[in-house]
Amino acid sequence: MFVHNKRLQYTVRVGAPNPGLANLMLEQFGGPQGELAAAMRYFTQGLAEDDAGRKDLLMDIATEELSHLEVIGSIVGMLNKGAKGQMAEGVEQEAELYRSLTGAGNDSHITSVLYGGGTPLVNSGGIPWTAAYIDTIGEPTADLRSNIAAEARAKIVYERLINLTDDPGVRDALKFLMTREIAHQKSFEKALHAIQPNFPQGKLPGDPRFENTYFNLSQGEGELRGPWNQGPEWEFIEDPQPAVDGGDGHASVQLKERDMKAVQDMAGRTRSDPQVDPKTGADLGSGGALH
Amino acid sequence: MFVHNKRLQYTVRVGAPNPGLANLMLEQFGGPQGELAAAMRYFTQGLAEDDAGRKDLLMDIATEELSHLEVIGSIVGMLNKGAKGQMAEGVEQEAELYRSLTGAGNDSHITSVLYGGGTPLVNSGGIPWTAAYIDTIGEPTADLRSNIAAEARAKIVYERLINLTDDPGVRDALKFLMTREIAHQKSFEKALHAIQPNFPQGKLPGDPRFENTYFNLSQGEGELRGPWNQGPEWEFIEDPQPAVDGGDGHASVQLKERDMKAVQDMAGRTRSDPQVDPKTGADLGSGGALH
Amino acid sequence: MFVHNKRLQYTVRVGAPNPGLANLMLEQFGGPQGELAAAMRYFTQGLAEDDAGRKDLLMDIATEELSHLEVIGSIVGMLNKGAKGQMAEGVEQEAELYRSLTGAGNDSHITSVLYGGGTPLVNSGGIPWTAAYIDTIGEPTADLRSNIAAEARAKIVYERLINLTDDPGVRDALKFLMTREIAHQKSFEKALHAIQPNFPQGKLPGDPRFENTYFNLSQGEGELRGPWNQGPEWEFIEDPQPAVDGGDGHASVQLKERDMKAVQDMAGRTRSDPQVDPKTGADLGSGGALH
Amino acid sequence: MFVHNKRLQYTVRVGAPNPGLANLMLEQFGGPQGELAAAMRYFTQGLAEDDAGRKDLLMDIATEELSHLEVIGSIVGMLNKGAKGQMAEGVEQEAELYRSLTGAGNDSHITSVLYGGGTPLVNSGGIPWTAAYIDTIGEPTADLRSNIAAEARAKIVYERLINLTDDPGVRDALKFLMTREIAHQKSFEKALHAIQPNFPQGKLPGDPRFENTYFNLSQGEGELRGPWNQGPEWEFIEDPQPAVDGGDGHASVQLKERDMKAVQDMAGRTRSDPQVDPKTGADLGSGGALH
Amino acid sequence: MFVHNKRLQYTVRVGAPNPGLANLMLEQFGGPQGELAAAMRYFTQGLAEDDAGRKDLLMDIATEELSHLEVIGSIVGMLNKGAKGQMAEGVEQEAELYRSLTGAGNDSHITSVLYGGGTPLVNSGGIPWTAAYIDTIGEPTADLRSNIAAEARAKIVYERLINLTDDPGVRDALKFLMTREIAHQKSFEKALHAIQPNFPQGKLPGDPRFENTYFNLSQGEGELRGPWNQGPEWEFIEDPQPAVDGGDGHASVQLKERDMKAVQDMAGRTRSDPQVDPKTGADLGSGGALH
Amino acid sequence: MFVHNKRLQYTVRVGAPNPGLANLMLEQFGGPQGELAAAMRYFTQGLAEDDAGRKDLLMDIATEELSHLEVIGSIVGMLNKGAKGQMAEGVEQEAELYRSLTGAGNDSHITSVLYGGGTPLVNSGGIPWTAAYIDTIGEPTADLRSNIAAEARAKIVYERLINLTDDPGVRDALKFLMTREIAHQKSFEKALHAIQPNFPQGKLPGDPRFENTYFNLSQGEGELRGPWNQGPEWEFIEDPQPAVDGGDGHASVQLKERDMKAVQDMAGRTRSDPQVDPKTGADLGSGGALH
Repeated sequence: MFVHNKRLQYTVRVGAPNPGLANLMLEQFGGPQGELAAAMRYFTQGLAEDDAGRKDLLMDIATEELSHLEVIGSIVGMLNKGAKGQMAEGVEQEAELYRSLTGAGNDSHITSVLYGGGTPLVNSGGIPWTAAYIDTIGEPTADLRSNIAAEARAKIVYERLINLTDDPGVRDALKFLMTREIAHQKSFEKALHAIQPNFPQGKLPGDPRFENTYFNLSQGEGELRGPWNQGPEWEFIEDPQPAVDGGDGHASVQLKERDMKAVQDMAGRTRSDPQVDPKTGADLGSGGALH
Repeated sequence: MFVHNKRLQYTVRVGAPNPGLANLMLEQFGGPQGELAAAMRYFTQGLAEDDAGRKDLLMDIATEELSHLEVIGSIVGMLNKGAKGQMAEGVEQEAELYRSLTGAGNDSHITSVLYGGGTPLVNSGGIPWTAAYIDTIGEPTADLRSNIAAEARAKIVYERLINLTDDPGVRDALKFLMTREIAHQKSFEKALHAIQPNFPQGKLPGDPRFENTYFNLSQGEGELRGPWNQGPEWEFIEDPQPAVDGGDGHASVQLKERDMKAVQDMAGRTRSDPQVDPKTGADLGSGGALH
Repeated sequence: MFVHNKRLQYTVRVGAPNPGLANLMLEQFGGPQGELAAAMRYFTQGLAEDDAGRKDLLMDIATEELSHLEVIGSIVGMLNKGAKGQMAEGVEQEAELYRSLTGAGNDSHITSVLYGGGTPLVNSGGIPWTAAYIDTIGEPTADLRSNIAAEARAKIVYERLINLTDDPGVRDALKFLMTREIAHQKSFEKALHAIQPNFPQGKLPGDPRFENTYFNLSQGEGELRGPWNQGPEWEFIEDPQPAVDGGDGHASVQLKERDMKAVQDMAGRTRSDPQVDPKTGADLGSGGALH
Repeated sequence: MFVHNKRLQYTVRVGAPNPGLANLMLEQFGGPQGELAAAMRYFTQGLAEDDAGRKDLLMDIATEELSHLEVIGSIVGMLNKGAKGQMAEGVEQEAELYRSLTGAGNDSHITSVLYGGGTPLVNSGGIPWTAAYIDTIGEPTADLRSNIAAEARAKIVYERLINLTDDPGVRDALKFLMTREIAHQKSFEKALHAIQPNFPQGKLPGDPRFENTYFNLSQGEGELRGPWNQGPEWEFIEDPQPAVDGGDGHASVQLKERDMKAVQDMAGRTRSDPQVDPKTGADLGSGGALH
Repeated sequence: MFVHNKRLQYTVRVGAPNPGLANLMLEQFGGPQGELAAAMRYFTQGLAEDDAGRKDLLMDIATEELSHLEVIGSIVGMLNKGAKGQMAEGVEQEAELYRSLTGAGNDSHITSVLYGGGTPLVNSGGIPWTAAYIDTIGEPTADLRSNIAAEARAKIVYERLINLTDDPGVRDALKFLMTREIAHQKSFEKALHAIQPNFPQGKLPGDPRFENTYFNLSQGEGELRGPWNQGPEWEFIEDPQPAVDGGDGHASVQLKERDMKAVQDMAGRTRSDPQVDPKTGADLGSGGALH
Repeated sequence: MFVHNKRLQYTVRVGAPNPGLANLMLEQFGGPQGELAAAMRYFTQGLAEDDAGRKDLLMDIATEELSHLEVIGSIVGMLNKGAKGQMAEGVEQEAELYRSLTGAGNDSHITSVLYGGGTPLVNSGGIPWTAAYIDTIGEPTADLRSNIAAEARAKIVYERLINLTDDPGVRDALKFLMTREIAHQKSFEKALHAIQPNFPQGKLPGDPRFENTYFNLSQGEGELRGPWNQGPEWEFIEDPQPAVDGGDGHASVQLKERDMKAVQDMAGRTRSDPQVDPKTGADLGSGGALH
């Protein structure tokens, strides 16, 4: 169960309304690397997690990310103060004032006010948040890697947002949020390493014939090798040829005799036109083996 | 520039058409962890990458993922052979046959045939592929972490798909694809470690006051500590209170005197109703500092 | 700031795993009338609300909806126990068992396990949650009406879900969740009526010529009148004709002389082909007034 | 069956082309509160409505909203005249002229012309219209509340758009459209009140233990009570504790003995590794009751 | 302006409720080739069309497609009669009955009833309709080609739906709808040919060096040539090599001297670390020409 | 299998970085008419195509479109050079410089850098690419028409992009890409005509009563006739009335006697309230025939 404290996790002091900047801040409110995505990523993992320690970790951080969502949303709200107030007024004599503030009439931040009244769950380009941003897959060592990567990306977006403003209050709050991504990333790293072995993920082993092979499929000048394809552990295939399994590289349906009979019966029952036979169940395409 | 060889990277031998199974395989054709997502993730990173070695790596693997997209699409195509053939016929006497194959008439795999003719770029639930699945952010150490995580997730989905069928040809091809995700994951790990330091990502350092703090925000029985919040490097806050910066936890706009004057003029010009004053530009919310 | 208590707001006792039922329950986890939509609707309104009383109301209910999201997610998780466990195993000898549980291999609930590992933020048809479900507009009397309607819809979906199962534990928890929607709806009704006048919303009055007019645009047998178009307050237009303003019903650009001159200059500068003159800036369409 | 009259329901007189303003007007063409959303909302309800009176009402208003879609689309078309004309030209010597009109080359309205040729079904931020905007649920008293709220929101958006321009022709047509939302809202209010009782929606009564309870889940300074949680009808819970049902607040699967036996057999048949027992069907999570 | 006649364009006689079939019919209600897509495609083109004849054609067919949307929606509504009625009931004693009708509890058609109450604007897989389906581009000869193709696709989907049922009333209505797509396709063909020349679309001619060239980029056994790459008009490039323009196939920024100076100044002002010079404005990538 | 050559199909020489122009170029990278849409359209058709000649054609062109995706992405990357470099820096002293470059702080191109690091798969308005853009239907003569139309639209978008810049290198590369669309369109035209007959698509003939009928559903002044509804082949219906089949224009369920009995039994078993009888399976709506 969640409980809410009316005070923010971090105090927000905005220097002056700035709807254009508010719009950019939406990137971390309703954007792919933003706080709702983070909170929901850890919350859905926490719900399905069977290990009590990791469940606790996930719920701690999910709850903090919800608190961050509130912080960034409050920044957006403060930066939008003027625009929202005047937009909500709807009194005719203000129209001139309003237009003077918004310039030529098509600034992108107007949409976010039109659309959602101040703090819509969209990114800085107005795209509504979608759960397609969440990549939870339900396997702890894979999900922890996803979490590490997600925190890394969020850190970068905060860094870019900090570079976009010199309002000291906004920068201060953003720096707190950025720092917390670093701390979370560390926690997830530790939790991943606490599971041993953690590679490869899951239970099925790879096929040893293809596990240490590197296919050099982008060719030409400017090729550089590095630890990712060089050294005793790698088999480097300079000019890969299909099919690597040694087969003919075709796709086919190879019916067992029993099934083939059934398909022929079926075809016979429904069509007599030999020309179109290939499109029935007996049609096995250009690589078909049924002949 | 890309060139295509008509043979597949791996030979596909499907035992018998099975539209229900085809539908599930779409998860790796047009799903979030599928081969198009992988190919486009590395291709967009490769285009923007300035380091020649990593650019080569990204283009090698992007090209291989396109080749995998072709392999999984060919599996889908073979498994759909019967359904597609009959659907395409459109001759009235086959209606009874068709309906007998599809059961009660609402099997989910019918949609994928109706919708896209065999191999649509959708997941196994029919959701069209979206670039929202791609989390490229344009910073190499963040992107490499995203790639490692993406390969980990894809490995898990292949493992689950393998468990859903006992068609030996399908399992064989899926196992190849799964193994390659393991190999790619290794390459990305090596490439990440070749960049030193690689943590934290980006250039801005965190705020040392909050970088090693753990906020225990999910409380109650069943709390377990672990390396993610225990040990000399962590400051564990048992019962976090707002605001962690020591402020009042409010959000406010703190206008400089000059700006405040302008807002008051603006308010004065447009409204005389003192009750609604709070909604003009001078209204700074419940935590406003302008008084 | 949010704090989480590890115990649920309502105890969840599921009688037996049932992945098909889990799938249907997702409608209130990640569906349009579900608990994430509710929580985010009130949370975004609360962030932007200037009135302290309504802000408190919105944050109270937003926090409760997050707690409901946890309850419904926990129901989904429990109903998925078997499926998730086996899916996560990935050991070959279980494949037969797994397939026997999932029937023909294309049951729709498999996608939700493939996709998100148990409790993905999707509706019962697998559609990822989108902020397009949230209709916050930033004007209190409009938003309160939206909230009343949203609670009404959520109540109906819970009612339908209750009808889909006879698991007493699931029904009991669903009934709690349904009841709370009724209570919230009442609170929002009271809050709306506390604002007077609350109709029409906003500041701009309607045009008295069209405010009480009813246009009978769907015609033919079976027309029935009722309080929505009958009585002294309504002007009922039996057979509406364009244009209701008395004009010619055309769309035109009516340039002032000064602008017209500029357009002609522009046209003259760029084209001499009289045939295509109509497509330049001077071309005012079939209803154009520039002649 | 629909029939179209070439004249508009309301005459559109645009003062001068203005692609930036056209872009903002798209909010009511292809945006969430726009006319297509309105038309489709009432049309889909009308199709499924069994009551002849309400069906007539819904079809009357759906048809009018389609006519409004045509009016707002015609405004967009007229405002785009210049831009579309020049864009369509595609002659090289005009490039300089075009670029001089569009400023730095990245004005957001260019996208809407690139994308859809003048009147695309997108909102003012370029987001394609989606049926996710429609919240029809198929229960008349819930749907009528949704309709009332939708009209309220649309009224507000028109008010904001009116404030963004001083073109008298555009303002005049927008004011007509805004006024009609007021009239529709009244009709839907009357239709809702004609159904008695209309609260709560549906057939299942709430649980009396929780129907008049208010959980004060957002806590701290600044709490204000009002008719939404104060008065004899409300039970106000100052500091809500889980679980409100008096249970332990855990989620569990509570197998009947018969089912438990089956699960154990299943587990026994497939695994002997005691370490992973918790992940089989017998694993009931941290709150499991199976012991 | 639109007017609605309560009678359908074509009489709908459904033999018996069948929610599974209803679900499939949604493909032409809210699917990509369905009637809303068709209506909106022609309606948006009609709004922006300057030629009076084509505008009339587009509005005639748009209006008919809206009438078809009503016909297919009415088929869906009739097929859903039983399910919707019982779902709407919400009385506890019916639960058993309901469950007996819906089988195992996860039939895909339940979602469409849960979600939208009978006739939601989704495809047969539950995907909400999106304006991304509409490919209007605002150039008549391109748009007419798009319309011809759209009618061709819709014809095929109707054909497939006809094959899925033997309810004579449903087949009869579907056949009418399918036939009308054929008629519309003919009209659009005629309208395209009435514009001469109509190829290539637009005004800019192609580059004669590349207009009749065919690049054989998919190579290997099984290549077949045909009129699409064979004959005097085609130049067939057997083994295409980059770069076809004769250049080096690199991407570069080639600053003029004046700009180069500005970039160097900028770099000098902000960084002294020569290692990272390549990431400033002066860094021109692997193919950079600035050296 | 795909192989990649590090050189581009066409050399890209950009005159100077220009992030605003980069943003517009995204229309053909991740937009609906862009190169990914083209590549995936032909690739998915090629996978499912049984005819070896057309399969070859589709794979040749799909591979070329992937190569074009690389060309347009390289243009975007070069135009973004400066912005990306500075954004990635994240060093505080550059903030002022950065802000001076980006103007007021809300230029739309910033989002694409924030979001995806340079070359995200979005259109020029920031909308993520979706497979909903692909209209492959799995019937060759329909799909070839779709391909012809898609090439026509892409040609137009390139033409518009060429008009937006006077950078000679960008124009040169865009002109190559535009020209190739013309060549592809020709190939698809030839391939369509090689199939005879190719109209109507599919196997089911139309209903001769409605195949040559034109319904004049948009009425009023300004009607113009043309080859699309005039001439001996057309039956022109001046004022169409429902229902064109001669029926009553109602939608009904017409149960056979046997089924009616079953429905009545079902109704009897579950309800005794005669008022709600109409909502059970026996309720046939306003046009019901069951009486």
